Amino acid sequence: MRAVDGGERCAVDREHGRPRPKQRRIMEENVSQSQYLHVTAPTRFVEADGIRHAYRQFGQESGTPLLFLQHFRGGMDHWDPMVTDGLAANRPVILFDNAGVAGSSGETPDTIEALADHAAAFVRALGLSQVDVLGFSIGGHVAQALALRRPELLRRLVIVGSKPRAGEDEGTDPDVSEVATRHEVPTLEDFLFLFFEPSPTSQAAGKAFWERRHRRVVDVDPPTTRQTMQAQSAALLDWRERRGERYAELATITQPALVVDGRHDIMIPTINSYILAQHLPNAQLVIYPDSGHGALFQYPELFVAHVARFLDAEVAFT
Amino acid sequence: MRAVDGGERCAVDREHGRPRPKQRRIMEENVSQSQYLHVTAPTRFVEADGIRHAYRQFGQESGTPLLFLQHFRGGMDHWDPMVTDGLAANRPVILFDNAGVAGSSGETPDTIEALADHAAAFVRALGLSQVDVLGFSIGGHVAQALALRRPELLRRLVIVGSKPRAGEDEGTDPDVSEVATRHEVPTLEDFLFLFFEPSPTSQAAGKAFWERRHRRVVDVDPPTTRQTMQAQSAALLDWRERRGERYAELATITQPALVVDGRHDIMIPTINSYILAQHLPNAQLVIYPDSGHGALFQYPELFVAHVARFLDAEVAFT
Repeated sequence: MRAVDGGERCAVDREHGRPRPKQRRIMEENVSQSQYLHVTAPTRFVEADGIRHAYRQFGQESGTPLLFLQHFRGGMDHWDPMVTDGLAANRPVILFDNAGVAGSSGETPDTIEALADHAAAFVRALGLSQVDVLGFSIGGHVAQALALRRPELLRRLVIVGSKPRAGEDEGTDPDVSEVATRHEVPTLEDFLFLFFEPSPTSQAAGKAFWERRHRRVVDVDPPTTRQTMQAQSAALLDWRERRGERYAELATITQPALVVDGRHDIMIPTINSYILAQHLPNAQLVIYPDSGHGALFQYPELFVAHVARFLDAEVAFT
Repeated sequence: MRAVDGGERCAVDREHGRPRPKQRRIMEENVSQSQYLHVTAPTRFVEADGIRHAYRQFGQESGTPLLFLQHFRGGMDHWDPMVTDGLAANRPVILFDNAGVAGSSGETPDTIEALADHAAAFVRALGLSQVDVLGFSIGGHVAQALALRRPELLRRLVIVGSKPRAGEDEGTDPDVSEVATRHEVPTLEDFLFLFFEPSPTSQAAGKAFWERRHRRVVDVDPPTTRQTMQAQSAALLDWRERRGERYAELATITQPALVVDGRHDIMIPTINSYILAQHLPNAQLVIYPDSGHGALFQYPELFVAHVARFLDAEVAFT
């Protein structure tokens, strides 16, 4: 493990990306990891397979770490502190930027499988032999690919707002692609459309999430680049292609899995979560009402309670 | 409320039914309801709309009572003590026999709506203005009809292994009807087929459930009669008929609802629970792995945890 301390970090220009402003970093202090929270955990760096990965670790010092795999165009700052801190109460939590994303070096690859391989290399570079993963959206696809390619690295999976390879597209809102890519930095309005329902309750929950998401103001990620957006778009297109018998590969993912979605996910239709839970041999499904793709950010306390019970049970589903 | 004390109860012959042996009753003592458990709560009787309903109440003395609505041919003894006592830890729990079922007088009616009306009359006869309901299988159908006909009586609904009117039948195992009706008193073998998966884990859970289900040995229900079986069968057939736009009536059930099923329900295909949660305007769905119709008895602790969180939240889904 070659963890690199924080401090002022060099700005990196990227092809197609904006020059990155220097980030004000939180200096690591001689405190235990359990004293850090989502907003105070210093960004660290570790090199794996030629990528200098930005990551943050906080929460309990012992227990199986929970690795968060982020959504399309998202970096470490785009999780909900109520979710990350809530789950960190009883386990180590690790946020990271995959290859080329936000604070990590390199180019973002254009297949889900390559993203999974980078995630695996990152886990190994941290010296970890096994983790739990919480994959959201494209991160849920990466979680599945990771389980298929490196099953020994995973103890349990939480898959949120995701779909299997060659999943159902019917029900995807036709405006999703445009809204998800129209702004260099996605706006509140974009998220209220993409992640939440039009109902007043869901919209209010979206605004509350947005406020929480911006509580961290120092040592933040640079925005993700156009290259990341394009490569992840290509990876999503590739994930739509069938490979062999549809859904057959899911039968080989034997880890206990918790599959979560909102009732009306306009980005990745909710029926995909049902399909995942039907085809994964050991999966529990939870679907929340009055919510969409970002259900985990709409019901952070309930989501944390469900996930914590799932992860903490000595025998899964007891 | 005209509650009738326990003690030796008259045997009642029924058309098509067996003569009932006199039951040894638990005498009510001067103890608080919270000291009773599933196996010790005395059977009481209350008259409502000409039916003398057998019921048992135990658990906390305050809070919204949770009324259990039982499955096809089932009486009060056919719940899992781990589920009833688990939920009674934080609320009053009421088990009862609907009209003509087991220890209750009268004839079992042959529509879900009439069963719901009897349940409503029973609730009012107990002097209760509002309850939560946990309806399992045909009891889940009754819960829906109750919500449609007497919405003011219901605070929240738990619907397990059920389906909407005119739900999906594809996926029902062709042997279900025969196995569910072949024995005068359904056997362990019947339940292991109907309620559990063929996997060793699910079968073992089924046997453990069977052992728990028989812990109550005094003051037990008489078996349900052939008349109950035939009337409930007719009610189930009627529930298959479409009335107006399919699933449209579900939109009017605005109570918070928790919909629960096993991943492979061969009695009432699992997709029905997905459909219920999609069409009920305020419902959360939970589907458990490696389980069937009787998932609530396979994962009693997890089920109780999920239901208790749902019922206990001051604002549903928080």
